[in-house]
Amino acid sequence: MKMGWGDLGAFGEPSKETPNLDQMASEGMLFLDFYTANPLCSPSRAALLTGRLPVRNGFYTTNGHARNAYTPQDIVGGIPDSELLLPELLKKAGYINKIIGKWHLGHRPQFHPLKHGFDEWFGSPNCHFGPYDNRALPNIPVYRDWEMIGRYYEDFKIDLKTGEANLTQIYLQEALDFISRQQASQQPFFLYWAIDATHAPVYASKHFLGSSQRGLYGDAVREIDDSIGKILKHLQKLGISENTFVFFTSDNGAALISAPKQGGSNGRFLCGKQTTFEGGMREPAIAWWPGHIPAGGVSHQLGNVMDLFTTSLSLAGLQPPSDRQIDGIDLLPAILQGKLIDRPIFYYRGNEMMAVRVGLYKAHYWTWSNSWEEYSKGIDFCPGQNVSGVTTHTQEEHTTLPLLFHLGRDPGEKYPLSFASEEYQGVMERISAVVQQHKETMVPGEPQLNVCDKAVMNWSPPGCEKLGKCLQPPESDPKKCFWPH
Amino acid sequence: MKMGWGDLGAFGEPSKETPNLDQMASEGMLFLDFYTANPLCSPSRAALLTGRLPVRNGFYTTNGHARNAYTPQDIVGGIPDSELLLPELLKKAGYINKIIGKWHLGHRPQFHPLKHGFDEWFGSPNCHFGPYDNRALPNIPVYRDWEMIGRYYEDFKIDLKTGEANLTQIYLQEALDFISRQQASQQPFFLYWAIDATHAPVYASKHFLGSSQRGLYGDAVREIDDSIGKILKHLQKLGISENTFVFFTSDNGAALISAPKQGGSNGRFLCGKQTTFEGGMREPAIAWWPGHIPAGGVSHQLGNVMDLFTTSLSLAGLQPPSDRQIDGIDLLPAILQGKLIDRPIFYYRGNEMMAVRVGLYKAHYWTWSNSWEEYSKGIDFCPGQNVSGVTTHTQEEHTTLPLLFHLGRDPGEKYPLSFASEEYQGVMERISAVVQQHKETMVPGEPQLNVCDKAVMNWSPPGCEKLGKCLQPPESDPKKCFWPH
Repeated sequence: MKMGWGDLGAFGEPSKETPNLDQMASEGMLFLDFYTANPLCSPSRAALLTGRLPVRNGFYTTNGHARNAYTPQDIVGGIPDSELLLPELLKKAGYINKIIGKWHLGHRPQFHPLKHGFDEWFGSPNCHFGPYDNRALPNIPVYRDWEMIGRYYEDFKIDLKTGEANLTQIYLQEALDFISRQQASQQPFFLYWAIDATHAPVYASKHFLGSSQRGLYGDAVREIDDSIGKILKHLQKLGISENTFVFFTSDNGAALISAPKQGGSNGRFLCGKQTTFEGGMREPAIAWWPGHIPAGGVSHQLGNVMDLFTTSLSLAGLQPPSDRQIDGIDLLPAILQGKLIDRPIFYYRGNEMMAVRVGLYKAHYWTWSNSWEEYSKGIDFCPGQNVSGVTTHTQEEHTTLPLLFHLGRDPGEKYPLSFASEEYQGVMERISAVVQQHKETMVPGEPQLNVCDKAVMNWSPPGCEKLGKCLQPPESDPKKCFWPH
Repeated sequence: MKMGWGDLGAFGEPSKETPNLDQMASEGMLFLDFYTANPLCSPSRAALLTGRLPVRNGFYTTNGHARNAYTPQDIVGGIPDSELLLPELLKKAGYINKIIGKWHLGHRPQFHPLKHGFDEWFGSPNCHFGPYDNRALPNIPVYRDWEMIGRYYEDFKIDLKTGEANLTQIYLQEALDFISRQQASQQPFFLYWAIDATHAPVYASKHFLGSSQRGLYGDAVREIDDSIGKILKHLQKLGISENTFVFFTSDNGAALISAPKQGGSNGRFLCGKQTTFEGGMREPAIAWWPGHIPAGGVSHQLGNVMDLFTTSLSLAGLQPPSDRQIDGIDLLPAILQGKLIDRPIFYYRGNEMMAVRVGLYKAHYWTWSNSWEEYSKGIDFCPGQNVSGVTTHTQEEHTTLPLLFHLGRDPGEKYPLSFASEEYQGVMERISAVVQQHKETMVPGEPQLNVCDKAVMNWSPPGCEKLGKCLQPPESDPKKCFWPH
């Protein structure tokens, strides 16, 4: 899911159009300091499902320094078999696992979600970009389980002109049906509802078009909000809400480059998606579990999408794997007992640790918004914002004297602390030790997002022959992928 | 009161440290589109108490174009006798009226609040700037009713180094005592609790110092929040909460120039105090009246501090004066019946209508943050923000082609609509008619904030002789006040 911190009424969106999410928060626990592991979707999702930083699980590139990479159609890599995904582990405890929506961990056969622990899939392997002409580029397939059942813009319409598409309704129905079936068969389940209506090109179904003060993006948010309300009510109606842990969060900060028509809000945080400023990585987050989580709770626990891996295992009575470094922590003590667990947050961009947060302090070891070249083309990750020496358009190294911010007094990262201050000296001593330990023990995984090849695109996904939708791939021509940011 | 839209947890402050205000909102009605009449304290307060724009009630200057003016110690003017203040009118319905805190409508004898309808006063006529040496400048007096009882920094301590001052506690106790007395005597009352702990120099009492993640400013917010909680609980304890209408709002947007140590937050809105961007004029606002206002209400009614004049009269069964233009409207239909009243919001800076809001659209006829000269001294009303052609450092006239924003899709005023678009044409037709009517019927009042004279400072306020605190004024030397912004 893709939504900015500031997109929820509960987080101060001025139109306050998310009554269901706001109610979810008032019945559950709101996390104010929750992060993604990467300011881009593929690596964020890989981190959520593996409990590990992308630099460990391979969802990064070494084609350039500190570059964001993901899984476009021509990507050769994907989630390595050596990674253990949450559904694989949950299976051992008898869980049935379903992913609805965008997978984004690789689309070649070996990366199929049903090969990585999921029992069911409804959705697409890549973003819903398009439409394509099926010559230079094939349209993105939509899968049910092992096989494709159609393609976006062909069998699953998205009207780019009006923004109309009923995909969120389909994804909602899939979720409700899955939950009903599991309840009927008394089977524990894990549902990963990975929708993408707020990802450009943004869409909403007819009923929601024009329903928001915020334009099309707001329409999409309203539909997602409405769907989440329906899912929670469904759990209650089936009598399993006190037996079902629900967590709402987002892949990365709102993509401000898509504003104002298709871009969300990161509230007062700096910049957006693609950056390691707060706007790129701090996420809306709500835990809901009636009867267990005290209603109306608010937590300042530093959390991360990777924690959902460890927390989910804990809920299932399982231990995280001990043969590898797991970055996610078990949040249950924070959620159920209000404890505050001391742990750092690392802000990675590709192969570089750009920043780290310890307590209320955040130290930037590198700063970069995007290059002058990209910026001069109008690609702006920080529209209307400019903090001198911070939102830099060249990669600036601060490893000897990191830029230090106090996120309580200065959530917008506008006022670096003076290097000469006692506060700076004392805090950096603590942070340096954390960083040193992190770097010393870091064993990067084999980077998966280096090589691109048009031959690997979704030309002939499994099932295409039944639909007469197989396309002829071009000759293989592997190249280094180009990652401009 | 001085607080930014983004300073409340209910409006998305990331530290979420205002449990009492948030609860007030959940028990009452949150206004998302509520404004001040001026982005500076004196004119804002004059507008609240008269129900009229500062350009009508005289709280503006003609010394320069579009300049903010207020009531420093050397101001000669103040609230004219010809203006009818809310407490003067409420008196007719038997109300006892008290102001606690900063008056700011003039400090010379004829402007005394007890000459303008208030029965009681505890507080100061001006901001708590200082300390002064009582030679070049006298320290600001604190009054009880007609006479001064001491001066800031002398009898009422403010420790600028630690930020400690117990003033909010004193103001709180004054409020609780006043309410108790009125309840005991079964007397209807109007309490204007006009505190200023979040105005630089920001202060908090010892118990609250260091209590916030946000630094000293946050400590002050916490203390105010706590005090408001105590006032509401007091009303409940006395059994008069269902008989008492309470409204919380702020004078103007947070002063971002005081950030990060003493500055608040305007959330995602553009710029701050002194400007006519949303950050300068959109205010946090909560109406509370248990048993009458539906709990948890949220209103998109365009509201203004001037409406509190008309709404309060309506609550008291009184009509607003018919011999003058009143800008405030009665909000009760919006508050009690959820109606949406169509009305524009005018954004004035001094003698100039800078912008107007109609529905979700805001048209800027003039843009200005501050001058290059001031900006180059480090005075920045929009720190970290820069919207080309919008946050201008020269006064830019757009009267022939106003800059138009859609505040739903673009609350941050970053993306002016294309002049060529149909949307622009259609909307500007509507807005132009509103502006034309407004300008045609506008009769500006005599400007009160043009002349300054060191001789009128608080040298010898009434009561000074009893305390031995009378000071010798210098020779009168009236000059045009200098208003740089």
